[in-house]
Amino acid sequence: MITGVLLDISGVLHEGDKAVPGAAEAVQRLHAAGLPVRFLTNSTRRSKRRLIEELAAFGIGVAPDEVFTPVAAARAWLDENGHVPHLLIHPGLEEDFADCGTEGPVAVVVGDAADRFSYQNMNNAFRALQDGAPFLALAANRVFRDKDGLLSLDAGPFVHALEYASGTKPILFGKPEADFFRATVASMGCDPALAVMIGDDAESDVAGALAAGIGLGILVRTGKYRDGDEDRVDPRPSAVVADVGEAVDLILSERG
Amino acid sequence: MITGVLLDISGVLHEGDKAVPGAAEAVQRLHAAGLPVRFLTNSTRRSKRRLIEELAAFGIGVAPDEVFTPVAAARAWLDENGHVPHLLIHPGLEEDFADCGTEGPVAVVVGDAADRFSYQNMNNAFRALQDGAPFLALAANRVFRDKDGLLSLDAGPFVHALEYASGTKPILFGKPEADFFRATVASMGCDPALAVMIGDDAESDVAGALAAGIGLGILVRTGKYRDGDEDRVDPRPSAVVADVGEAVDLILSERG
Repeated sequence: MITGVLLDISGVLHEGDKAVPGAAEAVQRLHAAGLPVRFLTNSTRRSKRRLIEELAAFGIGVAPDEVFTPVAAARAWLDENGHVPHLLIHPGLEEDFADCGTEGPVAVVVGDAADRFSYQNMNNAFRALQDGAPFLALAANRVFRDKDGLLSLDAGPFVHALEYASGTKPILFGKPEADFFRATVASMGCDPALAVMIGDDAESDVAGALAAGIGLGILVRTGKYRDGDEDRVDPRPSAVVADVGEAVDLILSERG
Repeated sequence: MITGVLLDISGVLHEGDKAVPGAAEAVQRLHAAGLPVRFLTNSTRRSKRRLIEELAAFGIGVAPDEVFTPVAAARAWLDENGHVPHLLIHPGLEEDFADCGTEGPVAVVVGDAADRFSYQNMNNAFRALQDGAPFLALAANRVFRDKDGLLSLDAGPFVHALEYASGTKPILFGKPEADFFRATVASMGCDPALAVMIGDDAESDVAGALAAGIGLGILVRTGKYRDGDEDRVDPRPSAVVADVGEAVDLILSERG
């Protein structure tokens, strides 16, 4: 008996600037069935405000409390540890760090910075790590499905490069970190074993959620999904379905 | 009885645009003793022609046949396998690839591209690898001592990032590849066990040479050397000395 639903956003609800057909209806059907829903994303190219605007444009109305990004957890880490961020992030994410402190030791914060992953910016981040700065990675996904339909480099390869060069291990905040899934489930007041995660990334979304104790992990064949992804991860997905609409069919049919 | 000498260039003969004191005399003393010398470098920011000009400016006269860079081996691989290079290299290295073929499948070639390590260039290289292109890494050093005296990112972190994203293992051509050391020693007609390598990189120069069967590996405390480097590598250097002058003292004293 499922009592809460976690939804990845990019690749599940939309592919680039196109909604996945049936995505808005799928979310409405979950709401109509009285199931709490949380949206959790490792996308770090846009602020939370912009993310909610984009979902609204796809016909999906979402409250700020229903959206979980790695930024809040990273912000909490900075505040608790009294660090000022050295940001290597996308311009679209800057507003989420606008009111950070300006006094204190530096911590390097890396997101999917896209064109800001220049040699100079990478080298500056490396040098801050060499000087002993802690290393916060908002996410470490390898790739994402880009607007042109092809895969593009996500934050992960650059996080990996900085770790390799500096020897500093990153503190990770997004999926597949167990704490990220658990905090999201806790916000629904729901037993993790009775929650389900729906995602297009077999490793980070689905295997990550199952490893964190989420009861079910459903892999959709949209977004970055490639044939056979389910055979390359451990634990394997509970189910593999065509898209989020079919995932919701499965969840609602299990409720009887 | 040493019968051939391998010398790293950057950090051993010069630091940035300054010669290491006594470097030119050290090379002259080797020549005067009748010892063949080869210069081998993983630096991929300049062409072989420019490298020889820079050594000449430091008072070190070197013939083209005495200089070994990873480019020749990579060029040979491209020719043998009938591939055209997709280059992610420094503008200063382009002339060494100027006369490559233009017909055939693509192979991605990565050197220390410096400012050309932009997100777009990295993503284009990644996409070529996704399409099945072989991956040639001219070198994979983590860092180098930059002109401002601080460490900067070398090719290694970016090679690592592309491998992590694509899952394609790079074919390496520079130090510490055993083939690179062996080809250089072979050009002197010298038994590897009777050759010595002098370098400032405990891992890539010295441990790499010893692992490739070079008889002696001498670590100098110039260039990128940091206290205790000799304790962090296996096999350990045969000797650790102040600079290339002292290394040559040691070699000539062993000859009696």
